[in-house]
Parts: sequence; structure tokens; C-alpha cells
Amino acid sequence: MIKASICTIGDEILIGQIVDTNSSMISSKLGELGIEVSRMLSISDGHDDIVGSLREEMESNDIVIVTGGLGPTKDDITKPALADLFGCREWKTVDAQLEIIREILHSRGLDMLDINMDQARVPACCEPILNHYGTATIMAFHTTEGKSLYSMPGVPHETMNALPDVIADIKAHYPLGNILHRTIMTYGMAESALSKLIAPWEDALPQDMHLAYLPNTLTGVRLRLSVKGGDAEDSSRRADAQIAALKEIIGDLIYSECDDTLENTIGRLLRGSGKTVSAAESCTGGMISHLLTCVPGASEYYFGGVCSYAVAVKESVLGVDSKLIEERGVVSSEVAAAMAEGVRKLTGSTYSVSTTGLAGPGGDDKNPEGTVWIGVSGPHGTITARRQYHNDRERNIERFSASALDLLRRYIIEDGEKSAFAA
Amino acid sequence: MIKASICTIGDEILIGQIVDTNSSMISSKLGELGIEVSRMLSISDGHDDIVGSLREEMESNDIVIVTGGLGPTKDDITKPALADLFGCREWKTVDAQLEIIREILHSRGLDMLDINMDQARVPACCEPILNHYGTATIMAFHTTEGKSLYSMPGVPHETMNALPDVIADIKAHYPLGNILHRTIMTYGMAESALSKLIAPWEDALPQDMHLAYLPNTLTGVRLRLSVKGGDAEDSSRRADAQIAALKEIIGDLIYSECDDTLENTIGRLLRGSGKTVSAAESCTGGMISHLLTCVPGASEYYFGGVCSYAVAVKESVLGVDSKLIEERGVVSSEVAAAMAEGVRKLTGSTYSVSTTGLAGPGGDDKNPEGTVWIGVSGPHGTITARRQYHNDRERNIERFSASALDLLRRYIIEDGEKSAFAA
Repeated sequence: MIKASICTIGDEILIGQIVDTNSSMISSKLGELGIEVSRMLSISDGHDDIVGSLREEMESNDIVIVTGGLGPTKDDITKPALADLFGCREWKTVDAQLEIIREILHSRGLDMLDINMDQARVPACCEPILNHYGTATIMAFHTTEGKSLYSMPGVPHETMNALPDVIADIKAHYPLGNILHRTIMTYGMAESALSKLIAPWEDALPQDMHLAYLPNTLTGVRLRLSVKGGDAEDSSRRADAQIAALKEIIGDLIYSECDDTLENTIGRLLRGSGKTVSAAESCTGGMISHLLTCVPGASEYYFGGVCSYAVAVKESVLGVDSKLIEERGVVSSEVAAAMAEGVRKLTGSTYSVSTTGLAGPGGDDKNPEGTVWIGVSGPHGTITARRQYHNDRERNIERFSASALDLLRRYIIEDGEKSAFAA
Repeated sequence: MIKASICTIGDEILIGQIVDTNSSMISSKLGELGIEVSRMLSISDGHDDIVGSLREEMESNDIVIVTGGLGPTKDDITKPALADLFGCREWKTVDAQLEIIREILHSRGLDMLDINMDQARVPACCEPILNHYGTATIMAFHTTEGKSLYSMPGVPHETMNALPDVIADIKAHYPLGNILHRTIMTYGMAESALSKLIAPWEDALPQDMHLAYLPNTLTGVRLRLSVKGGDAEDSSRRADAQIAALKEIIGDLIYSECDDTLENTIGRLLRGSGKTVSAAESCTGGMISHLLTCVPGASEYYFGGVCSYAVAVKESVLGVDSKLIEERGVVSSEVAAAMAEGVRKLTGSTYSVSTTGLAGPGGDDKNPEGTVWIGVSGPHGTITARRQYHNDRERNIERFSASALDLLRRYIIEDGEKSAFAA
């Protein structure tokens, strides 16, 4: 299997000023080609650090992809370091890149300076790849041992736009095997319990298959099944069979078979159905509404909602009976139900979801910190559910919201089945 | 200068499924202590890779901070690798962590499984640090050569919450020079414009002072003034003088002199004042409400609000005149004002804030993608403001929300001044 290393150059990443998103993007693409990324590395702008680290990466990998360190200003010294690394003393000017630089500067109303012209100068031993989205020339160094180093700009949109050309060059130079990844999104069971539940299945996976757990407060536990090597079609068929077997065990927890979110799934269920949803939020304070509206096109099915943080708003806007609140308490099944019903009536949506709970800090014996009551209302009545988490306000707001979205998702699916049955 | 390396363990980063945000967060904190981060590294879940890479990092650094690879499931093999790296054959159970695990599982209604209990087992040669926010024990390995390796959980909120304890341990083990940091939070001007505006002041800073720009969509540009070495009291006095001079230039952009957010600042302004706020959101879809309620104790001053994503909800719930919407368009100063006034009337709050705009995708000549109208209403009338951003839905929702919170903040301050004048 072909091994790659991805290196970012630049103090701004090392001092924590910016988060490296390039490596992740490049890695996804390499993975699709069946190239295994063995390491990611961030190093400083120092000449010796660049030469030393990249030499090491070249020794233990077939391909090294470098991003950053190619800007026109003086803190960028990647090119001389690469010339040293490959023992290259001659330089050349890439005329086509010079033309691109001239155009880019012109479009910004800037004159061409010496430091701009330098960006089209590269070590003579490299094969230049044109950068159509920025001024820095992309360089490919191919060694006689069949190894390659690619040097790309570090500005994320330039990296992204240049990547297809680099990928094309890799494909032209290497015979590529396959790695297949399948993602299964689950919600409703913690990682440890899930792992115990599916242990017999996981333990029986063939040697070339590997399962990884990726828990996330908002999206649940993402499972990733990888199949290394082999024929792509065969791997895909075998992965399908394993996932089918997995579904027999945890089918009710799975909400998607691609890299997805609960709010996207709800969007998929509602889009084009003519059905709509609204939200009445107390403890989640707008988070559910925010998540629903992060989906492009949500305006087709999301009417909006009420954040009834104060009790008075629950009563006056949502029409929750003050006696009910007094008798049952604000954090109760009854109030969750009344809120869901209230916002559904107010907006005229098909479905509605509500939350009332204690994100923290604070709580009592009956409702400790981390308690939430969720309500979902729709054509087939109102359901409620209680969830208990722990002491972390921000996490709880996320957990409550995700849990509410999951209950809503289940209701919508069940409702669709009931309606189909009735029809 | 003490050198550190930050390593993340986990295939999920290497295959590009998740972006590593921990390293950046850790690096910022180390930088504040005057520790230089020489490398960041992401390696696989493989035993040999972990042992080999970490050994190398230990050789060329004083401190190695490892995140990830500590989950309860079987793809996490960091602990045995660390035991091998430090030649440690004995293991011990950390009772206090076991108690935390028990509490966390209990609060989630889960039983303690063997794999959960294992999370409190660590190599005997390490010094455990309790993880109060998750189940994995944090480990500190101190070598006889005065080097240290810290192993932390990889789930970002756990890493973040555990970091102060790791930092405290580092402080206890290493002689760190004095670095004084002052944070100044600004909102309303982009980094490049801000940097140009304060260039004369920045250029005149004494040699031992350094300014860093940390832009963030939700909190604006954070400025960090660092003073290296010297007497703490003297540094503090000199930093005060510089900040006073900076305020002469950009005083109106500064909303806080600690590491803060706009919503916290609003909380500080309203808490104990008896004054309250509500929100009417269209394009921000609950984000403003979410931000306001992320502040602990927000229920004292935040009544809640309406997310009027659908036009019908703007009319029926907020009472916005349908003729006004027809004449002026949904994205208009008039509708923003009517929404703010509507939600203020509905909830009876002192102040209210509203948004109506186009986060994208989509827009027209009059209101291109990235346009928002913001309204703020209160005892001294209603104001509106138009903001124009770019083409990025998720970031626009954040920009709109932050911009609205900033306008609300300015209104509250001005209102306080007017009221004081009137009284």
C-alpha cells in the first residue's frame, strides 16, 4: 500500500493561531485513492526544520504533500529548503504561472513587484503544476527511487482548488490499490454500550476490515468500517453484507449511512413532503432552531419557533396553562407536551418539538442538573421523553438538542408509516 | 526556552474524517506560558507507530502532550503503548477516577462495564490527573531527565476542560519565565483594517512587547498584548499604559478587556439591572437566542424569543404588518424594526433584538447573499442597521448573530447613559 505523509509549514499553525484544515481535506482525497496517510505533521518556518523533517518523511513514505510556506513575504522559506533537500542548484521561471500572477495582481489593481515575480521561480529539478487560484507555483519533485514530494500553497481555498491537479499527477505516477470506507451514523446509545452490544459482530469481522468509533455530542456515535486492499467492487459488496448484519443488531439506532447529521436527516425526510416543523425551546434556548436552520433550504419545511426561556413566555406565547406549570413543574412531561402542542398550534406546522429542562448549573432531587423533558407533537398525537445527562451546561444544551431532534426524527418516520398504513 | 510537541492519536484524524482542533487550543495555552511548540503530529492508532513517534518527540522536546486514543473501545491502544514506551509493567487503578466514571455513567442511566472500569487503570509509573468531564484518566509521565509526557482524552470538550490541570502540572514542574498577557476584545472592524489603523501604536511598542491578532467570527478580533520577562508588577503597569493609549484610538470597538464574548458582555450589562431582553430571529434561526442562553444565569434577563423563519410566523406571532412586508420586502429596515418591536411587545422585555436577511445560498441585486438587517428596540426607540457579508451560509449566520449582539450591546450602553442623564 502506498503511504503518504501530509506536512504543513507555518508558525501560525504551531502557535495555535489557525487550525489546520488542509491536512484533513487532503487526507480524505488520498484515502479515496487507497493511499494510506501515515502521519500528519506541522512544522515551523525554519530552514533546518523543513529540510530535516521532510527528509525524514520522505524516508518512511512514498508521497509527501507539503502545504504552506509559499507566500511572497520573507517568513516563507520553503522553496530554498526544498532546493537544498533535493540538492538542486538551478532555478527556472514558470512563464505560464508568471502570466497567472500578472492577471491576479491586475484584477486586484496591484503592480507586479519583484517578490511577486519570485513566486514563478522554482528549483529546476521540480515539475511545476500551475496554480490558477493564487500566485504561488505548485511543485512536484519525483525522485529516482520512485518517491514524490508535492509542495502546495497553504491558503485553504487555493489548496482545495489545486488538489485535483496534484491528485491527477499522483494517479499518473503510482499504481493505486483500494481502501473503502463506509460510515454509519447512530444516535441514542453511548460509545461503550454500543461497543459491547456489537462486540460479537465486530470480533467476527475479517482481518482486512476495521471498525472505528467516532462519538460526537450533536451527531451521536459515527461508526466507520474500512476495508483495506482487494477489488473495489468485491470490497463494497462485502462491506454491504457486514453492514446488513450490523443493522440486524442496531438498526433502530442507525439514522444514516453517509457522513450526516440529525438535522440533515430530518431535512431529507421533510423536503418535498409538504410537511413542516416548528420548535418550542426552553433549556435549549434556540439551539434546535439553529441546527434546523443550518441546513440549506430549511425554509421549505421549518416554520420557526418560540424560545420560551421565561415561564411567562411559555404561558403568554405558547399558551401553556399556568396551573399545569404550578402543579407539574416547569420541567415535566406535561409542560413539554403543552409546549409542543402550543407551538404547533401557533405556527400551524405538521410537527413540532419542544424541550424543557435544566442545562445547569443547578437542579434539585426531582430534576437534577442535566434533566430534560422532550415533547414531539404531530398528526398522531403527542409523545414525550425524559433524558438525564450530567453537569456541563454547554454540552447539555447540545445533548438535549440532539436528543430532541432524534425523537422528532423517529416520530416523523413512524408517522409516515402510520399514514401509509391508514392510506 | 522550553520546547513542546503536541501529538494527536487516532485514525479518524489521519483519514481526514475530523479536523484536529485540540492541538491549536493546547498550543495557544502553551504559548501563553512562554513554551515554544516545535511540532504538531498526528499518528495512527497503531502500537508501534505510537511508541516510535512519541519516543522521537520525547528526544527532541521537553514536553510532549498527547491527545486521543483513550476511549473505552478496542480501537484505542494508547495506554499499553505508553506503558511500553516508559518500560512500565505494573498497572494501578485510580479510585477517584473510578468514582467519576461511576457518577457519569449513573447520571446517564448506564451500568458500569468492564471496559469502563479499565478507563481508571493506568501504568503504575504515571501520575494520574483526574478527568472530571469524561471517563478517561489523564496521565502525566515525568522522566528522570526532566522530561514530561501528558496523555489527555481526545474529545475536544474534555481536552479543553482538562487542560488547566495539565497546565498547572507543567507550571509545577518547569521554571517558566514571566509572560504577561492582556486581552482586548474588539468588534466591528476586520483584522486588516484594524491592523492598519493601529499600526503607529503597534510599531511604537517597546521591544519586549508583542501584539497578536486572533480573529473570530463570533467574538470579533481579539488582540493579545504580551510582555516578556521583567518584573510582573512593572510589566502590568506598562501594559496598562499601552492599553490606555490603544483605547484613545479604538475605544469604541473594544467591548471587553478579558477573554470574553459579546453575549457575556450583554449578561454583565443586564445582570442585576432588572432589565431584560428578547429576540426575534429570521435568518439567524435561533443562533442569537442560543448564544444568549449559553451564558449561565441568562434566565435572569433573557425572556426568550421567536424564530420567525416563515413569513407567516412574522405576521401571526410577531404581528408584523403583511403590507409592510409586501411593500418593503422581508429583508428591510422596516421589517427588522417591526420584528424587534413585535417581540418586545409580545414578551414585555426592556430590550429586543431582531434579524432578517439572507444567509445564503441565494440573493438578488437589492439584497445579495450575505445581507442582513438588524433591529434593536428599547425604551428610547428602535434602531436598525444593515450589514453586508459574503457567500458562506454557516459563517453568515454567525456573523449576523454577532453583529446583532454588538448592536444590542451598544444600545444598552447608550440607553443606560441616556437614562442616567434623564435622571
